[in-house]
Amino acid sequence: MKSKQVYLDNASTTPVDPRVLKAMLPYFKERYGNPSSLHALGRESKNAIETARKNIAKHIGAEPEEIIFTSGGTESDNLAMFGIARAYKEKGKHVIVSGIEHKAILDACKKLEKEGFEITYLDVDKKGLVSLEKLSLSLRRDTILVSIMYANNEIGTIQPIKEIAKIIQEFKTVRHCEESATRQSEKTNRLLRLPHNDRFNNNSLFPIFHTDACQAASALPIKAKELGADALTMSSSKIYGPKGIGCLYLNKKYSSTGSLQAKIEPIIFGGGQERGLRSGTENVAGIVGFSEALSISEKKRVSESKRLIKLRDYFLRRIQKEIDGVLVNGDIKQRLPNNINVSIKGVEGESLLLLLDRYGIYCSTGSACSSLDLSPSYVLLSIGLPLELAHCSVRFTLGRYTKKGDIDYTMKVLVESVKKIRGISSIK
Amino acid sequence: MKSKQVYLDNASTTPVDPRVLKAMLPYFKERYGNPSSLHALGRESKNAIETARKNIAKHIGAEPEEIIFTSGGTESDNLAMFGIARAYKEKGKHVIVSGIEHKAILDACKKLEKEGFEITYLDVDKKGLVSLEKLSLSLRRDTILVSIMYANNEIGTIQPIKEIAKIIQEFKTVRHCEESATRQSEKTNRLLRLPHNDRFNNNSLFPIFHTDACQAASALPIKAKELGADALTMSSSKIYGPKGIGCLYLNKKYSSTGSLQAKIEPIIFGGGQERGLRSGTENVAGIVGFSEALSISEKKRVSESKRLIKLRDYFLRRIQKEIDGVLVNGDIKQRLPNNINVSIKGVEGESLLLLLDRYGIYCSTGSACSSLDLSPSYVLLSIGLPLELAHCSVRFTLGRYTKKGDIDYTMKVLVESVKKIRGISSIK
Repeated sequence: MKSKQVYLDNASTTPVDPRVLKAMLPYFKERYGNPSSLHALGRESKNAIETARKNIAKHIGAEPEEIIFTSGGTESDNLAMFGIARAYKEKGKHVIVSGIEHKAILDACKKLEKEGFEITYLDVDKKGLVSLEKLSLSLRRDTILVSIMYANNEIGTIQPIKEIAKIIQEFKTVRHCEESATRQSEKTNRLLRLPHNDRFNNNSLFPIFHTDACQAASALPIKAKELGADALTMSSSKIYGPKGIGCLYLNKKYSSTGSLQAKIEPIIFGGGQERGLRSGTENVAGIVGFSEALSISEKKRVSESKRLIKLRDYFLRRIQKEIDGVLVNGDIKQRLPNNINVSIKGVEGESLLLLLDRYGIYCSTGSACSSLDLSPSYVLLSIGLPLELAHCSVRFTLGRYTKKGDIDYTMKVLVESVKKIRGISSIK
Repeated sequence: MKSKQVYLDNASTTPVDPRVLKAMLPYFKERYGNPSSLHALGRESKNAIETARKNIAKHIGAEPEEIIFTSGGTESDNLAMFGIARAYKEKGKHVIVSGIEHKAILDACKKLEKEGFEITYLDVDKKGLVSLEKLSLSLRRDTILVSIMYANNEIGTIQPIKEIAKIIQEFKTVRHCEESATRQSEKTNRLLRLPHNDRFNNNSLFPIFHTDACQAASALPIKAKELGADALTMSSSKIYGPKGIGCLYLNKKYSSTGSLQAKIEPIIFGGGQERGLRSGTENVAGIVGFSEALSISEKKRVSESKRLIKLRDYFLRRIQKEIDGVLVNGDIKQRLPNNINVSIKGVEGESLLLLLDRYGIYCSTGSACSSLDLSPSYVLLSIGLPLELAHCSVRFTLGRYTKKGDIDYTMKVLVESVKKIRGISSIK
C-alpha cells in the first residue's frame, strides 16, 4: 500500500542529513576519546567539541563560552527556567511566559510554582500572538525571567521577539535606576549577590529574557544578541541533526565562573563539564552532528525558507480550494515557512492522520511531542478554537526533502480521505 | 611517531562496537520518526525504544517499566539521588554514600546538603572497600537512600553489593515493624504518602538502595534484583555503546504512576516521555545502540572477563618485575578484571601519561572524568595514599580490543619512560 512516503511532520523531528551523519561517524569509531582525557584521543574529542562550540556560537552571534551543550531542547528549556529562577530567586520570584509555550517550559513552570515562584501566563490572541501591551503591564520589580518562544511548534506563529526584547530591555533600564538609587554601598551590593560588572552597566540584569528557538532555527535569523535574547534554546533534531543533543545560549553575564559571583544553577551535577553548568561525558558525535546540521541549515536558510513558503502556500491554496470547511489555525503571515495547521470541519484529526498514514503520508494532530495523549491541543484552545474544531485539526510541516510532487500526491489522498471520513466517498 | 595506538583508557570511555553502530544507523537515516508521533514512522521509533527497553530489562533482570532512559551515567546518578531524596523527603532527610563515589553522586550530595539533607560519607579502607559494620551503624530511622557504587572507576575495587543490600534489607524489615506499630489507620497511611502495597509488604520501602554500575556493567553480573539493588545506574559509553545515553533501573515500587501515590521526582520536565520521569524527545539511535551494546557485552561477559584478568595479571606482573618502586592502588582481588592502578615512585603521573601519549599509548591519571583538573584524586587520598604517591599514580584499563601484543609494546615504552622521567635514561 505504501508505494510512496511523504513526511510532512518535520516540526516533530527531522531526518539526519547525510552530510551530518558523515561528520559524526568518525566520532563513533576511531575518534572515541573522552574529552576529559589528557591523551591525544581525549584532546581530539575536546577539540571537536570546542570547534563545534565556536561554529554554533558564530551562527548564533555569540561567544563560544555562551554555548552550553545539553541533551536536547527540553533539557535546554529546563536549564534556562530552573537554572535562572533558582539561582536568582533572591532577586525576585516572578516569571512570565506565554500560555502557548512548549511543555518543557510550561511543566518547568508548574514545578517552579511548587517551589514558591509566581508565574504569569500571557494569553495569546486568535493569531497566537502575545500582546506587547500585556507583557509590558505584567513586568514587575520582582520579575526575574521572561520566556517566550520564537515560533510555535503547532501553529507556527512567530512572536515579535525583537519587540518583546526591547520592552524587557527598557524595563531593565528603569530597574537599573531604581536599583542604583537604593544601592548604598559595595557591601549591600555583595549581599545582593550582583555580578561585579552590573555596577557599571546601564541596565539591571533582570528580567532575563529567554526564547525557545527550537522550531524557528531552521527558518528564521537566530543571532541571539540581534534578537535581544539573553538566553536561547536550540535543538539538533529539528534542524536535520541527531536526536539527543541541543544547546542553551546564555549571555555570559549570567554564567561566568570567573570574577562574577552570579551563575545559573545546573540541573545536572557531577564531573564539571560545560564549565560546571552541565555535567556528564559529552556526546561528542552528537555535538559534531549538531554543529554540522546548523552550518548546513544556515547556508541555505534564506533560499530554503523562500522555497518552503512557495510550496506551503501552493499546498494551502489547494487545500482551501479543493476541500470545503477548512479553517487555518494561527496567523497566516507571521508564520513559519513550513507550517500548515488547519481544522477541517467534520473530520476528526486522528482519523485523518491514520487514514493518510495508510498511504504513506505522515502528519500530526495536536503537538507531536505529546500527541500520544489525545486530549485536545492547549495551543489551539488558547487561540480560541472551539473544542470541536480543535479535535478536527491537522498539522502538515514541510521540510528539506519535500517536493511539489509530494504535495500533489498528498492532495490527491487528502481530498479522498476527507470525503471518506465525511461519509461521502466509497474508498476503503 | 605514533606507528601504533594502544588504548588503555577503557574506564574513561570505550569505542563504539561496529555491530552497535550498524544497529544505530537506520535510526539516523530512514527510521527517524519522533516516538511520540502517531504515524508509522513514529510508531516504528516507539517500537524500537520499547524493544530496547525490554532487552535491557531482561539483561538487568528487571521489568521493562523499570528502565528509565537518560542522557548517560551522570544524569542517571542524579535522577536517582535527587529523584528519590526530593520525592521522599517527608520520610527522612538522611542519605548514605561512600566517600569514593563518582562525582555525579558526590556533587549531587553537595546539592542535597544545601537542600537540607544530611549526608553520611562512609570511609573506605586501604583496599577501597566500604565497611559493612560502619554502614550498619550509619543506618537511621530517617535514612531514605543509600548509594554505593558497584565498582570504582579509578581503582576498580568491587564493593560487596549483595552483602550491602542484605544489611539494608534487614534494616527495612526492622523499620517495617516499627512503622506498623505506629501506623494507626488508613488515613494516617495516606498522610504519610506511602504507596498502597507497602501496607501488605513485610518491609519498609526505605532506605532505597541505589548502586552506580557504570564501571561494573561490562565485567560483573548486573541482575539488579539478585544484587538486591532498588535502583541501578548504567551508561552506554562504558560498554562499547554510544556516548550520551544511559539508563536508571528503578524498582517499580518507586515509580509507578498507577495506583501508587509514590513516585520519584523528575529532574527534567516536559512532554512526559519515559512515563513522566524523563521528558524530552528520545534519543532513538542512542537507545538502540545502548541495547545492542549490552547484548554484545552480556553474551561474552564471563569469557571476556577471564581473558582480561589473565591479560591484566600478565601486564601487572611485568610492571612489578621490570619497574621498581611500584605500589598497586586498591584491592588486588576484589577488582575489576580490566583495571590496573599503580603509583610509581618518583614518576609523576601526568608526565608519564604525556610521555606514553607520544608513543600512542593512552592511559589515565586520577579520574578520567575530571582529569583536566590536576588536583590529586580524592579516591586515592581516601584509601590513605600519601599526596606524593597519589601524584605518581597511573591507571591502565584494558578493553575488548586489547591484545597481548599491545601490552608487550606498552611495557617496552613504559620501562623506558619511567627510566627517562627518573633521569636515568638517555631516550628523548
